[in-house]
Amino acid sequence: MSTFVQINLDEIRSLSTQVLTGAGYGPAHADAIAEMLYTCQLDDCQSHGLFRLLMCVQTMKAGKIDGQVRPIVEPSDNAIVRVDARGGMSLLAVDAALPVLIEKARRHGIAAMAVNRCFQFSALWPEVERLSAAGLVGMAMVPSHSWVAPAGGKRGTLGTNPLAFSWPRQSGNPFTFDFATSAFARGEIELYKRASKPLPNGVAVDSDGNPTNDPQAALDGAMLTFGGYKGSALSIMIELLAGPLIDDMTSLESLEFAEGRSGAPYHGQIILAFDPSQFSGGLAEQNDTRAERLFADILDQGARLPSQRRFEARARNRARGYVEIPSELYRDLLALLD
Amino acid sequence: MSTFVQINLDEIRSLSTQVLTGAGYGPAHADAIAEMLYTCQLDDCQSHGLFRLLMCVQTMKAGKIDGQVRPIVEPSDNAIVRVDARGGMSLLAVDAALPVLIEKARRHGIAAMAVNRCFQFSALWPEVERLSAAGLVGMAMVPSHSWVAPAGGKRGTLGTNPLAFSWPRQSGNPFTFDFATSAFARGEIELYKRASKPLPNGVAVDSDGNPTNDPQAALDGAMLTFGGYKGSALSIMIELLAGPLIDDMTSLESLEFAEGRSGAPYHGQIILAFDPSQFSGGLAEQNDTRAERLFADILDQGARLPSQRRFEARARNRARGYVEIPSELYRDLLALLD
Repeated sequence: MSTFVQINLDEIRSLSTQVLTGAGYGPAHADAIAEMLYTCQLDDCQSHGLFRLLMCVQTMKAGKIDGQVRPIVEPSDNAIVRVDARGGMSLLAVDAALPVLIEKARRHGIAAMAVNRCFQFSALWPEVERLSAAGLVGMAMVPSHSWVAPAGGKRGTLGTNPLAFSWPRQSGNPFTFDFATSAFARGEIELYKRASKPLPNGVAVDSDGNPTNDPQAALDGAMLTFGGYKGSALSIMIELLAGPLIDDMTSLESLEFAEGRSGAPYHGQIILAFDPSQFSGGLAEQNDTRAERLFADILDQGARLPSQRRFEARARNRARGYVEIPSELYRDLLALLD
Repeated sequence: MSTFVQINLDEIRSLSTQVLTGAGYGPAHADAIAEMLYTCQLDDCQSHGLFRLLMCVQTMKAGKIDGQVRPIVEPSDNAIVRVDARGGMSLLAVDAALPVLIEKARRHGIAAMAVNRCFQFSALWPEVERLSAAGLVGMAMVPSHSWVAPAGGKRGTLGTNPLAFSWPRQSGNPFTFDFATSAFARGEIELYKRASKPLPNGVAVDSDGNPTNDPQAALDGAMLTFGGYKGSALSIMIELLAGPLIDDMTSLESLEFAEGRSGAPYHGQIILAFDPSQFSGGLAEQNDTRAERLFADILDQGARLPSQRRFEARARNRARGYVEIPSELYRDLLALLD
């Protein structure tokens, strides 16, 4: 049975920066990463909270990341801001360019940010929620490693390619979603394997392209996208927009670059920002009411909006001043400080 | 058994304009619609080809559309072009604003077009393929009528909300997809009902929100999105971007507006355009090679790229100079001319 330990909110950041600086991240990167882990852990997003410190340490050990490098934001007159992470973790690059993206969206009505040459381990929802907190609509996409077969295929070509979206609501928390376009996360298949449990249908194919429920056959074969050929098309779109469009790697290239080492994948990222005021001809407030009617109609029939559980966790954890993480994870993290 | 009749390519346009002007569309609208029907029919896209003339006639009979009105393109300095279709069919508005969208994408790197107050019956792929033909990446979204339940729901809130995307390829035909975010098209359920055939699983719920295979129970209840809660989230995103963001109707409002009448739904449309040259820092050609490697890896494992059948039909029909449509449809169309 899992037991949990309480971590005070302050300790999330302090523990993170200690582990990160100990592993070789400079103070700027350590702070940016700690802030992201805090944001995720506060929302009880265990898969992207303190747990990810292990991946950050692994990534440094893999030897390709630069823990000190400063990102460079390319100056531009158009509606695109390009930021070169120069082989560092993505977050510092996003921090540097996000204010420029917001300014460009307010100037041009729509704007885009391309992050290049970065290691990526974080969830995308915190990034699009920084846009919705600024009153903009945000959309973000990244490739990953080519573990996912296209519809009708039998080997990994696509990444788990998440899509995140956030819509600002005048009533409070935004409408946000962030999902992988793979049917399952890679880590979930590993968990099924360890538990010797059969996979559900529609998650993976074996190396001959036949449907499989065997976790090992899935790892030897390929994962599937959600939603059949439609999910597969969406995943290919994300490869193109977050890869070749912005002069960065596809998931195939990213997996090759890793040379079998684990840790955060290296590739690019694209974020779009839309200004509701300019899109609506100055009628953003009336249209907020229109969107609220849509949300109300969803809730009224007993369906949920995405991210509601996360917002509830955020409110609860803020009020009580601590989060809970698995005791085993806490022991593993403390061991990293020895 | 269905029999087919050959229609010369010239006749697609002439038959269309005859039917449309006879029904009350002015020459400008009739030409724009005929061009769209030609484009779809040339690709053997039967559901959006000459068959749609019946819907155009129905839409005019429903009494709300203006067959003569000229769209107004709003002047702007930002990266958004807004065009008011003023209660006419969408196509003339798209024709008027698309050159502005292309010019804005080339100037700002990314640009968007909002079409307001239009009736919409056409597929979206011809519109995004006009962008990829201009060397840009195109994405388009529209709401429709609220026949689709959100994940976990039991009544129609969302439209069939298609997403279309086109990526220009230097080697020839673009990478294009255009899919409804509903699991099935509305018309498909009607066909199952007429044939007294049970629906596949995962297509619809009855009015209590329980899964159903009965077409009538599905029509009384609600359709489902593809891909469970992920497809549902994507569909909500499309509602927001192609509705409240651009000061236009959601699928709920569009269905109310129709007041039970059939014909083309009335709402807005959003189209995004990305300039690969500016996103890639001038390296579009190298990145075309990168994208081609992705496509080659998909094809090499026996998977298909979307739209391939359509491109094959286009080449074949162009070469032979005619298309084939069901004889019954041809009789119905000729009857409209009496």
